[in-house]
Order: sequence, then structure tokens, then C-alpha cells
Amino acid sequence: MIAVLKAGVSETQKNNLVNWLKSQGVGVHMSEGEFQTVIGLIGDTSRIDPDLLNGLDIIENVTRISEPFKCANRRFHPQDTVIEVGQGENKVLIGGGNFAVMAGPCSVESEEQIVGIAKAVKASGANMLRGGAFKPRTSPYDFQGLGADGLELLKVARKETGLPIVTEIMSERHLDLFEDVDIIQVGARNMQNFELLKTLGRSRKPILLKRGLSSTIKEWLMSAEYIMSGGNENIILCERGIRSYDTYTRNVLDLSAIPVVKELSHLPIIVDPSHATGKSRLVKSMSMAATAAGADGLIIEVHNDPAHALCDGAQSLTPAQFDEVAAKVRAIREIL
Amino acid sequence: MIAVLKAGVSETQKNNLVNWLKSQGVGVHMSEGEFQTVIGLIGDTSRIDPDLLNGLDIIENVTRISEPFKCANRRFHPQDTVIEVGQGENKVLIGGGNFAVMAGPCSVESEEQIVGIAKAVKASGANMLRGGAFKPRTSPYDFQGLGADGLELLKVARKETGLPIVTEIMSERHLDLFEDVDIIQVGARNMQNFELLKTLGRSRKPILLKRGLSSTIKEWLMSAEYIMSGGNENIILCERGIRSYDTYTRNVLDLSAIPVVKELSHLPIIVDPSHATGKSRLVKSMSMAATAAGADGLIIEVHNDPAHALCDGAQSLTPAQFDEVAAKVRAIREIL
Amino acid sequence: MIAVLKAGVSETQKNNLVNWLKSQGVGVHMSEGEFQTVIGLIGDTSRIDPDLLNGLDIIENVTRISEPFKCANRRFHPQDTVIEVGQGENKVLIGGGNFAVMAGPCSVESEEQIVGIAKAVKASGANMLRGGAFKPRTSPYDFQGLGADGLELLKVARKETGLPIVTEIMSERHLDLFEDVDIIQVGARNMQNFELLKTLGRSRKPILLKRGLSSTIKEWLMSAEYIMSGGNENIILCERGIRSYDTYTRNVLDLSAIPVVKELSHLPIIVDPSHATGKSRLVKSMSMAATAAGADGLIIEVHNDPAHALCDGAQSLTPAQFDEVAAKVRAIREIL
Amino acid sequence: MIAVLKAGVSETQKNNLVNWLKSQGVGVHMSEGEFQTVIGLIGDTSRIDPDLLNGLDIIENVTRISEPFKCANRRFHPQDTVIEVGQGENKVLIGGGNFAVMAGPCSVESEEQIVGIAKAVKASGANMLRGGAFKPRTSPYDFQGLGADGLELLKVARKETGLPIVTEIMSERHLDLFEDVDIIQVGARNMQNFELLKTLGRSRKPILLKRGLSSTIKEWLMSAEYIMSGGNENIILCERGIRSYDTYTRNVLDLSAIPVVKELSHLPIIVDPSHATGKSRLVKSMSMAATAAGADGLIIEVHNDPAHALCDGAQSLTPAQFDEVAAKVRAIREIL
Repeated sequence: MIAVLKAGVSETQKNNLVNWLKSQGVGVHMSEGEFQTVIGLIGDTSRIDPDLLNGLDIIENVTRISEPFKCANRRFHPQDTVIEVGQGENKVLIGGGNFAVMAGPCSVESEEQIVGIAKAVKASGANMLRGGAFKPRTSPYDFQGLGADGLELLKVARKETGLPIVTEIMSERHLDLFEDVDIIQVGARNMQNFELLKTLGRSRKPILLKRGLSSTIKEWLMSAEYIMSGGNENIILCERGIRSYDTYTRNVLDLSAIPVVKELSHLPIIVDPSHATGKSRLVKSMSMAATAAGADGLIIEVHNDPAHALCDGAQSLTPAQFDEVAAKVRAIREIL
Repeated sequence: MIAVLKAGVSETQKNNLVNWLKSQGVGVHMSEGEFQTVIGLIGDTSRIDPDLLNGLDIIENVTRISEPFKCANRRFHPQDTVIEVGQGENKVLIGGGNFAVMAGPCSVESEEQIVGIAKAVKASGANMLRGGAFKPRTSPYDFQGLGADGLELLKVARKETGLPIVTEIMSERHLDLFEDVDIIQVGARNMQNFELLKTLGRSRKPILLKRGLSSTIKEWLMSAEYIMSGGNENIILCERGIRSYDTYTRNVLDLSAIPVVKELSHLPIIVDPSHATGKSRLVKSMSMAATAAGADGLIIEVHNDPAHALCDGAQSLTPAQFDEVAAKVRAIREIL
Repeated sequence: MIAVLKAGVSETQKNNLVNWLKSQGVGVHMSEGEFQTVIGLIGDTSRIDPDLLNGLDIIENVTRISEPFKCANRRFHPQDTVIEVGQGENKVLIGGGNFAVMAGPCSVESEEQIVGIAKAVKASGANMLRGGAFKPRTSPYDFQGLGADGLELLKVARKETGLPIVTEIMSERHLDLFEDVDIIQVGARNMQNFELLKTLGRSRKPILLKRGLSSTIKEWLMSAEYIMSGGNENIILCERGIRSYDTYTRNVLDLSAIPVVKELSHLPIIVDPSHATGKSRLVKSMSMAATAAGADGLIIEVHNDPAHALCDGAQSLTPAQFDEVAAKVRAIREIL
Repeated sequence: MIAVLKAGVSETQKNNLVNWLKSQGVGVHMSEGEFQTVIGLIGDTSRIDPDLLNGLDIIENVTRISEPFKCANRRFHPQDTVIEVGQGENKVLIGGGNFAVMAGPCSVESEEQIVGIAKAVKASGANMLRGGAFKPRTSPYDFQGLGADGLELLKVARKETGLPIVTEIMSERHLDLFEDVDIIQVGARNMQNFELLKTLGRSRKPILLKRGLSSTIKEWLMSAEYIMSGGNENIILCERGIRSYDTYTRNVLDLSAIPVVKELSHLPIIVDPSHATGKSRLVKSMSMAATAAGADGLIIEVHNDPAHALCDGAQSLTPAQFDEVAAKVRAIREIL
């Protein structure tokens, strides 16, 4: 960490600052220039809060040099992490050059629905099934999902198709219910629910960690670090769009996050084009773009409930549309 | 809710849509214009997801008319909500023309610290004590607070000064620990931790609900609605700055949220100028501005730990600085 | 346009509003519901400012139905616009399935530099040369470009290679200097310099209109409309990243803007991955992603000045790196 | 400027970088730590583009230390700038503890209108008249203002009331028309129209420089610097809200910009609550808040055209409402 002092700071103030920094266990390297003094902090600076330092009247600015994430940092783990789920012919590898295609409905609604979609997306090349049982909804009056019953229906669909399943957790209290799920998803709104992250750190299940609505890439990696520092290193990151001022799409899909995450971290990163845009007619082009940008997989909403056929244009694709997307994605994968 | 159809939608498509809408229990009013058809949805539209409708290929756009929040809505509760905490001479009213001044340290560190600050801020006119026991930190390696011990120290300070206490909860599992706290704070990062909100809805404790990092005012009111729909109507909203592209201050304090919340809701709203700006030298002017804008109170960070005297410039004020802020705020209150 | 009245609006207020709307020349269709009144405005609503209407005390909200852009609107011009520049074997078509690769340095610095780069990028498959002569710089103390001399050097490079040239205009007063330029670029900071747009509307030169730093897609199309309504329909849109709260990349490249623009408009859209990310190491993956998302072309910074070889990592690629990007982009184009 | 090298940079790469930096005329101070090398750049670093440096593969990050603005910097000009306009009893001072109240309609429409409003706002305590003659409109089909005729009507109103006038310029070509205007306004969309700024730098007229839609405070000060470095030091800054993701208000009024600008610069700063919020019912509270935050003045939209009486709720106040706002603002000024 580097702190630059303001012009006109007195010797006493400097000494107070240096003494306090040393009392926190960090080494201090002073560099006095013509106009300013620069203080380099050496050693374990994780105990120094840069925001606190930055707020001091005598400080011009503070720059963190070493990233505060360690377990998630590619510098210390140059090899790509590869997550493995499922078994036998249904084994799926995520990361390290492998590509995962997760597909399924927004919400699990019935056995017929989830099994039907599972079969359809498997036929089109999906290797994992997604589906919401516990649903985060902005309004308390909206459908909150089937809960534990939905988890059971997902397992039925897994039994029928062999596809490993991924579904969202919304409370630490529910962890037991997720024992037999293949990947546990943490939604954007819980990305900084730190108690949930700590709890998941004590699990050994693979975690799909979605990026927060307005989180920076580094905050996102710090949330992965929360889980990893608890001992669970099986993290898959998921870019799902960030909030912007333009309301035409639900969010702005930040595809540059893919190469940036790969530069900073060894963790795999997949993309959710359905939630990012909120419009199914944009899913195809964004799936192709995400693949071309180097994503390790996609998670796509697909429905096949005839009663909802009306809703073709919403963020869910029909199986036929998904089939077309999957084919294009495979073609792009071959170029990479 | 009003949905506008795209040009060129067929009769069959229109009929499908109308039938589906009716099957969801809403009334439908069609208005065919020269260039477009407008569908008005009448009755209980809470079962219709506007995002889903908006995503349909045949829909140009969707506008929600009635606000989806009911308990929090001023339309149905024209009178200001007044929250009451504490007893006897230490009773504090928040809302309805009353003004609360909550002050205290970022983290509870020791009995000496918290009691000392409590006495100091009381002397300067604070009527509530704030202090963090469970701390949400971006990094797992940062100090996470004293936890349950911190709560006990806050109670000691309350006993010494009479000041009611407000402190942050981070997990549903901790609710029992907060039984004897006067106001339970929900932090910005948990504003959409819906399971926590539901749990707090079953409590009857006053809740201080901070605005999420990038939440709209309506999303914030929907989070209040989660708690209120569970039966707990004692909500105080707290504006604490929203995320922006300018990094000079930590967040952008959105003071227009004060009159907007008062227009939309009957709930009281207070302001946290310390976290919003991240710089103590901005706290005075922002406290005065928030008061002039009509806030129902302030929550301000104050420290008096001599070991940290160095950090005067950070987001915490010294008691002497707080005293000056409190006096200016009182002067502005007299004008209103 | 649809306006929803607030509950409790009096008959007099309604009549005043309707009379005023009619006096503005629009037809009015009232629809009285149980809880609210909806007013549909019919005919030429372009004279009604929705912001003004939305601000009225008696109005709940206002929704614009027909897009306010006409010349740029795909609804009225279903066919893709194809822009043609250059001649003979150097003719370049942009839009309608054709793909343009514009490459060159940030700033024109010398004849040797610009001719050398032009030859190198042509060899790698670029079909247009870009280079800044007038440079928009945040600081008045930064290098402002070679100006008119830079334009002459671009023409020399065009003569040597045949590549049509694109370069930025910063003032209406300079239009004469751009007479012999193939495409005139309007930078992000001038996207709403309406007097410049009007001036360019009187020209017949193709215009490369960059998206503003924080402009919505619709505002961007309205800026295209400014030029087109003046009679110049030769507009190429250029996505170059939008401002966000994450500072790791310079901007967030919004690739979903590509399918959205193609849905709303018939104008071609290209992508600038260099300025969007500010890091050359991200240019390759973002060029591939933009191509996969359906862009009509790319504009990429390339340098070959040995004195700057050091700066390989900045937003400019070396010719060798550009060669690799161009090959990957061609491979993706073949799939589409 | 401080540059931190990545781990593992070779000696050759370091030497290349240092040699290049020296060739640009800056001094270099190397500080080799255990894990990283820090390079301090000394002297005139204005020739070094931090973005370029930051993009280098061998660079971890770059921090600018000295602010790139000089003329606008409080460090070099500790005294508040005071701008003087008007004469005799109508003289107005802005900055240095003086407070300006500018009021008037969005657009100048007729002599009767502008003279009527001018008289009304003067009676309520305004000391300057605002009114748009050249109007920046998102759509080319919207009313573009009366242009030169509007400027003449403003002068008539000034003659009738004595109030100095402020109005917006949209093109360098129009400068001659503004010779007899008291303050020339640069709108948010032209804040980085650098050619316009340079032209205004050659004038000696006071300039009201609005903050750009998404500009940082430092970019805004750099735009002031463009004008000042040309020799015109009469700049008044105007905060008018910044773009955010919440559409309830038109923009988010950033009142912390007031103390921040006063810390960084000696220039006066006023606030436009009308454009910031887009709703007249929020103007009163935001005017009071801006005053309490230490603004040097306000610029408020007021109309008195009976034909538009209907539009009371839009961003313009009636004279009666303005009168009430002005009285509250005076009361708050007395406390400061």
C-alpha cells in the first residue's frame, strides 16, 4: 500500500502516522520528494483499512498494491481451477478449457415441467440443469418458488436425465436442504451476504457465485475469497450484468469481466445472458459473444411449458431456440 | 398496469395474450389506436410480472401504475409513522416532525471506548447511541467486530447514559442476540437479503433499513414492504449514499431521496452522512443539508479513542466536531 | 404517448389538461378505470415534452409509445443501411452484412509513422485507416494533436495504401478541412453537441457517431436523428463503452447495444474495443466478442512506432498483435 | 505520479521504461521493495498520460499525485474567487460568502413573458434573471428556442428590472451574439466541448459551467481549467445532478460536490435544483439543502405564463412558490 501525504504536513503529524502504522505491524518506507512525501507500507497490510487511511486529513491518496484476495489470486495459483460435478458419462468439468452449458427454467413448477425441459435441453447439448426452487423476488407478493419441494423435483429430473443440477440458496438455514445438489448458486443480491458466504465456506459443495448488481470485479473476487478462506475452493463465478442508467435492457452485460477475471484469478467464469438482458431475443447474440470472449460456460433460461408458450419473448428461450443457440456456441468454441 | 403492443401484432397473438392475462385473474381493457393497441390491466395485477410481460416479442413496453408496495405506501396511510424507542426521559420519537440524532463509533471496541463516546455524544445532544458489533467487511481478513460481546458493551453504555442503542444484524441466526437492542439495523449489503427481511418481519423490533448500494427508491420501499407484510411496521429508512462513477467520495449522498420517500411513503427517513461520503470533513455540511431537506434524523460516526486520534480525518468525527455539527443542525431544525 | 393521472384528480384539472393537450394539436383518448384515469395521446406527439408532462402534480407517470426518432427508425426503413466509402479495389461497404476493419494509431504523429502503420494494418486485413489529428483531451495541457497537418498526413497514407480514412472532428468551424476525409468521426464527448450535429447534417459525408459516455441507446439514436433530419443519412454508430463505477477497465463495453441497435434502427454499428477497455490485452477477446454479437465492423488502435514499443500494453496493439486479432475475427465472421 | 510495477518485471523492461520516462523530461525515483518496485515520477509529469502508462503490461497501477488543474486549484489560489456582474444597485457578487439567486423560465417565449417573470422574481429576491434562448434538446423535432431574438428579449427584461442576465451558448459561432450578456452558460452536454471552452477562454465574460451528465468533479474542474488556461478566470461552477440508475428523479443532485469543490478549488459553485430533479415539488427542499451545504447561489426555473399554469408541477415554480423558496433560503443563509 502506498500513501501520499498532503503538502504542508508537519513532522509531528508524520511521526504520529508512522508510529501508528508500525503499531499495526506493517513496515514503513518513507520517500520525501520536492513537493510531497510518499509512504510505502510493507509486509502484511491487510490490517490497514485503506478507506480509513484515505479519509485522514493529512493524506492526499492511498493506493493498494497487492490485491487483498489471496486464495482467489492467480498470482499465487497460476493454474486454472477446474470444478468437477456429476459422475460417469454425466460428469461435467468447468474451467481449464472445458465448457459448461447449464439450461433450464426460471422456476421449477412441476415434475412434468422440469423433467420435460431437462430432456429437451440435454438433447440440445446442455450438460447441466438449472432451475429455481427458492426465488429472490423484489416484491413479497410475488411467487417465492416451491422451496424444498422444488429441490426434490430437480432431483427427479436429474435422475431421469443424468444432468447435474444447480439451484439458488437464499438462507444459511437452508444449507442442509442443499446437501444433494450439485452446485449451489448464490444470487446477485446475496453476493455480499457475508454470513451466508462464511457458511458456504464450511461446505465443500461447488458454489456458483453471481456478481452483485453493482459490484466491482475486485469486490466479487473478495466475496469468492470469503468462501475460499473458509476452506471451500470450488467457486465458479457468474457474470450476469451490472446495473446502469439505460433501462432498455435489464442490466448491462459486462463481457470484459471474462478476460479480466482470467487475468486476476484462476477461477472459472460463466455468463448468464438471460438475466443480464431480460429479453430472450438478445440471448443468442450475447451467448455467442460470451463464448467468443472466452467464458467457461453459459447458464441460460429455457422453458417448455405450453401454457406459457405465449411468453416466448421473455428472457426464457423455447427448447427449439435453445437448440439453435447451443449449435452456434459450439461453432464458436471450435475456433478458440 | 398498461401494456402497449407492437405494431403488426396478429389477432391470434392478441387473443392469446388476453386469454392468458384473464387466466391470471386480472381484468383486461383493450384500446385500439391508429398505430398501436394499448391493454389496460385492471384489478390485482400483483400476480403479473412486468419484466416477463415486457420481454414478450409482441410487447412494446409495460408501465406499472399502482405501486407494488401497500403497507409502506402513503396513499393508504396518509399519516406519518412515528417510531418510539427508549423510555422516560430517554424516550426518542422518530418521524412525524420529531428528529433523532444517533451517534457513536463505527465499531464497538471496549467498554471504556463505548461508554466514553456515549457520554460525550449525549452531552452534545445525541439521543441514541450507534455502534457496530457485527461488521460487514468486504474482506474476510478485516476485523469482523466483537459480535455478541459488542452487543453486551452497547447495553452497558445504554445503562450508563440511558441512550437507546442501534446496531447492525448480519444473520437471521443472530436474531435472539438482538432481543434487548432498541433498533436493529439492516445494512446496505443486506437490503435484499429477503430471508433476513422475512425473519425481521416476524419480530416487533424497530428496524433501521439502509438503502442498498445501487437500489432504487422503489426497491428500497419494497424491502420495507417485505418486513411490514410480515407484521412489523416499525421501519425507519436510512439514506447512506449510492454508488457512482466518481470515486472522490465513497458514495453519492442522494438527498432528494428524502422528499421522494416522504411523498411515496409514511415511513420516517434518516441520513448517514459518514458512510455516504467516507470523509469526516464533509459530514458537517452534509448533516446540515440533510436536515434542511427534511430528514427525520441523522446517524453520525463519532470516536473518542485517543489511540485513534490520528484518524480524525476519517469518516468519524471527534466529540468536539460532533458537538459543532449538532448545534448547526439544531439551528436549521428551528427554521423548518 | 400515454399519461396516467393520479388518484383524486378533479374534473376541472382533467379538463384543463385535456384542453391544453388539444391546443398542442394532439388527439386525446380518455380511459377511466376504477382507480385511475389513463389518457392516450394520438397523432403527432412530438410537440409534447414527456418530461414536462411527467412533472405535473396531477400525473402519475408518462410513457412514450412511438419512438421519437423517425429517419433512424427501422420501423420505417426495414432495410439495413449500407455506407460506401473509397473506390475501386479499396471500396469499403459498412452494414448490410459487410464488415469493416478500421485500424490505426491514436494520434497521427509523422508521415513515417502513419504510412508505416497504414501499410502494416492493410497487410493484416484492415480496410480503413483511423488516426487522430484533432484530439479531445481532458486536460488543456495534454497534446492536442497535429490538427490540419495531421489531416494532410492521413491523406498521404491513403495515397500510399489506398485505405479510406476516418478521423475526428471537434468543431463546426473545421468542417472545410474535412472535405477530403472519407468518414468524419464525432467523439463521445460531442455526441450531444447539437450545433455540430446540425452542421454535419448539411454535409453528405459519412459520419461515425460514437456513443456518449453515459448516453442511452435511444439518446444516441436521437443524435443520429439530428444529423439525418438535416439530410445526411450516412451514419455509422460506434459503441465505445459506457461509464460505470468499476475502474478496472476504462469503460464498460456494452455489446448488447449491437442487437438492440439492429432491432431499433437500420444503421450499421461498429465497436471500438480499444477505447472501451483502455487495455490492449483485452482488445483481442472483446474484438472477437463484438464480432460474434453481430457488429458491422471494428475500429482498433494500432501503433508501430519503435520509440513507443515500450507501450505495448497500452490500448494500442502492435501490428503483429493486430494481425492475430484480425485473423480470429475473420474466423468468427465465417460462422455468422 | 507513482507507478507500481508488476511482480516479475525484468531489468531490461525496467530500464526501457525508465529511459523512456526520462526522455519525456521527468525525473524518476525507484524504490525496490520485497515484492514490487515503485517508480516515483518527479517534475513536470503533465506530459505523461497516466492512462497510457496504466495500460502497460508491466504496470500494476498508476496514481496521479498532483492535481492536473492549476489555475482552478485552491492550493495555488487560497482565496475564494468572487465574480462580479451588473452595476450599481443591481451589482451581484458570486462567491466569497456572497449568494446569488438566479431565476427565470426554461425558455424565453415573448417579451411579456420574460419581463413579467423578471419583475416577479426580482420582487421575491432574485438578483439575476435566467432564460434559455438557444435550447439544447435531445430531439431535433423539439422547440430549439428563439435564438438571437430570445437574447434581445432578455436584454429588454434586464432593462426593465436591472437584473443581470445569464443564458446558454451552444456554438462557438454564436459568441458575438453573447457580447452583451452578463454571464454565459455552458450546458452539461457541452462541458467537454473543448473547442467551445477554448473559445470562451479568449473571452473575458463570466462563464457558468454546468457539470456534465456523468462527469467527475475533477473532469469538471479540468473543463474549467480549459477556459482559465486561455486567460478567462471568471468561472462559476454549477452542480445540476448526475446520471444514475434511478429514474424517479431526472438526475441525482450531488450536494457533496459543494464542499468538495470548495476544498479543491477557489471557484464559486451554485446549484440548479430544477434540472437536477425535474420535479418542481422537490425544488424547495433541494434549494434549502444546497444552501445549507454551502452553495454560493441557486439557479431556479420560474414561469408565470398563465397559458402554462397547468404545468405547475413540472420543474418550473410559479412566482408564488419561488417567493416561498427564496424566503426559506434566506433564513438558512442567516445561520451559516
